[in-house]
Amino acid sequence: MNSFHTAPSTAPSTSLLTDMYELTMLQSALHSGTASRPSVFELFGRRLPGSRRFGVVAGTGRLLDAIESFTFTGEQIDFLHRTGVVNDETLDYLRDYRFTGTIRGYAEGECYFAGSPLLSVEGTFAEACIIETVALSIYNYDCAVASAASRMTIAAHGRPCIDFGARRAHEQAAVAAARAAVVGGFVGTSNLEAGLAYDIPTFGTSAHSFTLLHDSEEEAFAAQIASLGTGTTILVDTYDVATGVERAVAAARAAGGELGAVRLDSGDLVAGAFKVRAQLDALGATSTKITVTSDLDEYAIAGLGAAPVDSYGVGTRLVTGSGRPTAALVYKLVERQGATGRMEEVAKFSSGGKSTVGGAKWAGRVLDSSGTAVEELVVSCSAQAEAMRALEAAHARPLQVTLVEEGRIVEEHRGHEALQAAAERHRVSRAELPYDAWRLSEGEPALPTRHVDLDGTGARRR
Amino acid sequence: MNSFHTAPSTAPSTSLLTDMYELTMLQSALHSGTASRPSVFELFGRRLPGSRRFGVVAGTGRLLDAIESFTFTGEQIDFLHRTGVVNDETLDYLRDYRFTGTIRGYAEGECYFAGSPLLSVEGTFAEACIIETVALSIYNYDCAVASAASRMTIAAHGRPCIDFGARRAHEQAAVAAARAAVVGGFVGTSNLEAGLAYDIPTFGTSAHSFTLLHDSEEEAFAAQIASLGTGTTILVDTYDVATGVERAVAAARAAGGELGAVRLDSGDLVAGAFKVRAQLDALGATSTKITVTSDLDEYAIAGLGAAPVDSYGVGTRLVTGSGRPTAALVYKLVERQGATGRMEEVAKFSSGGKSTVGGAKWAGRVLDSSGTAVEELVVSCSAQAEAMRALEAAHARPLQVTLVEEGRIVEEHRGHEALQAAAERHRVSRAELPYDAWRLSEGEPALPTRHVDLDGTGARRR
Repeated sequence: MNSFHTAPSTAPSTSLLTDMYELTMLQSALHSGTASRPSVFELFGRRLPGSRRFGVVAGTGRLLDAIESFTFTGEQIDFLHRTGVVNDETLDYLRDYRFTGTIRGYAEGECYFAGSPLLSVEGTFAEACIIETVALSIYNYDCAVASAASRMTIAAHGRPCIDFGARRAHEQAAVAAARAAVVGGFVGTSNLEAGLAYDIPTFGTSAHSFTLLHDSEEEAFAAQIASLGTGTTILVDTYDVATGVERAVAAARAAGGELGAVRLDSGDLVAGAFKVRAQLDALGATSTKITVTSDLDEYAIAGLGAAPVDSYGVGTRLVTGSGRPTAALVYKLVERQGATGRMEEVAKFSSGGKSTVGGAKWAGRVLDSSGTAVEELVVSCSAQAEAMRALEAAHARPLQVTLVEEGRIVEEHRGHEALQAAAERHRVSRAELPYDAWRLSEGEPALPTRHVDLDGTGARRR
Repeated sequence: MNSFHTAPSTAPSTSLLTDMYELTMLQSALHSGTASRPSVFELFGRRLPGSRRFGVVAGTGRLLDAIESFTFTGEQIDFLHRTGVVNDETLDYLRDYRFTGTIRGYAEGECYFAGSPLLSVEGTFAEACIIETVALSIYNYDCAVASAASRMTIAAHGRPCIDFGARRAHEQAAVAAARAAVVGGFVGTSNLEAGLAYDIPTFGTSAHSFTLLHDSEEEAFAAQIASLGTGTTILVDTYDVATGVERAVAAARAAGGELGAVRLDSGDLVAGAFKVRAQLDALGATSTKITVTSDLDEYAIAGLGAAPVDSYGVGTRLVTGSGRPTAALVYKLVERQGATGRMEEVAKFSSGGKSTVGGAKWAGRVLDSSGTAVEELVVSCSAQAEAMRALEAAHARPLQVTLVEEGRIVEEHRGHEALQAAAERHRVSRAELPYDAWRLSEGEPALPTRHVDLDGTGARRR
């Protein structure tokens, strides 16, 4: 069904990472003849989670991989048949399924706001509907982590932040978290799989267990330095911190060098860092750095801003989105062909809330004359050219790029270089925001979102 | 190195789902000759997260699968070599790695408390150290979800709860969440991969997009019923709920049956359920059930207790642990052979907190004469027989079972039947707890943990 599709992926199929209702809806739509209606779905957040100032787009590269691998294997078809999830007509459709539509969206790393159309998925209802769940899973997690990471790197003010969160998240989520953290400005990860999968620099030296394994702290430190060199980072808080620091510096010097760094993983890190820095300086170990870990988040990092700390290892709060473990993004049908053959805007109208704005949308960031962003402009318009003219007239930087074109993935948006580009894009996008964006406190989004409906028709109740 | 190991797994290798420091510690320990020291690590929580009343053990079956797949492929060895993570001696060790030790632990589904030794991992330092990260990843996520699930099924008071959270968690975490939810008492999931992987019943019918796809709500409902039958669940809140209910019942009757259920996904669910029930009853559709979704958690479910609701679909708050997205479990070395050849207790002593209790531990739940649990008894003792006598003397039900014996996985603890057994075990274990355990408010653990050190030696500073 797709003349463009790339070579079959060797990655495991992603097609069952899907809510069952996507497939039962497909079955009903195939039955009623509506499955092939051209449709537009959009992925967006109704608001930023937890009164955040901005969100960070992440997961784009992973989504493109997931779409490529979204095919139904024989085992999966057998499962759907055996359990009666869907009927034979639907299984025939799924057996040949590949996404052949077009996806536009914000480039990875871009900041986003309430109502920003992060993805616009165009295709038949059938093909665009069934990728909903996996698209939301990837974006909801990755954007949550990247958004938290960005707040942490703001608070760290240039000091390097490293992801140490693998143990506090699902084992595969942790790999995605390491990647999303890079989008948000982290420099590396402890997670080896993330190093292999995404070419992210990996970091790590030793835990308390390594000190406890040896008959004395001195033996442990000597063993580590003998194997990893004097430039290693020694964990000094297994017994007494001051004694640990003294022993660590002595062990490095006995091996003919100056110690690379010490790590503090408990206690009052602010006081601890000042004490350890003074001790290191008194010992003449002025080049020895201090790295801190232990339940850090953006607030703790900000609180350490004046302390003599050289880098931060962040675990739990990074991989759990610092209190917002999901970005609360949704995926909604906004336009589809009607019985007349014309494309029509559609929207949920319920008085109970969760209403949506119909129509395909085009977004731009409006900048003032100093280059500072002032507004997220979202134009509803069925004609792309007209929408682009409206953005240009408002001096808005267009935010959407083509990620998938008629089923063909735009390679520029995935892979190692795309990840580095996303990190750089985020740095630039964040720098463009007004100062309010950098505040850690809860509050209004740094940019208001303004909706303009150029068609002026709007969706209607049916 | 292991005469017992099972057939090579076809599952992807889990060995790089690991913090880099596990491997650099291994390198240093191989260099210092301590890597082969017999050691005992324990996995436990210092406290229950967020003042919860109890925790729920989950992830056991997944851990056993992960340990079986914890081998280093050629591609992984090449990566570690190319990036210089560890030296050649270490790569030689990893190339042949299989876990050959013994793991005892709480059976899946068991309730746990502060300091409960959920896993005791015995082996060489090397082999027990490097599975730390993946063990923690699995337990921290799965226990967090199962613990939240159990609170929700307490609140639901027998009404069925179904996992609808796939879209709000990392795509693979969502599969684990569906499984953990079953341990906590959920009856099914929307997640098809969880259905395939773990034989969990799957549920799902339609979304707002299905209604919007059609030219009218009537056409959408007729299409769904024509394909899925009158027993289906119709989503009635796309436009006006009362009109939706009327149309849904009429559509089912036009097809010759009574409607299975309606779903409410927005608005005030308590008021909504009462109104819809009254309307259904007035229409004579007394057998038509009501299912509710929309940001449910244990408190919202409790609040719906008096409302005429038949089942709950729970998303975000389930898969994110209802405010506690990680169980905050740690993995610590508690005992290892010293230079003398004797096993010695070890522990972290830092004044800054995070201190640990040394020595291998044996746990039992002390019940009173009525069969109600009153205490979690944790005995530190190097001799198993002596520890078991102490538990018996205290009328404590022993809590640990053997999960892995000298590298051989005890099959009873993984697979589909193990998951069902875990759900049943949790039901029984939870019922044994005092009434306080069922309170949703924050507070003290339902059981105090009492530590007894039979050896009386204790760990010492080194």
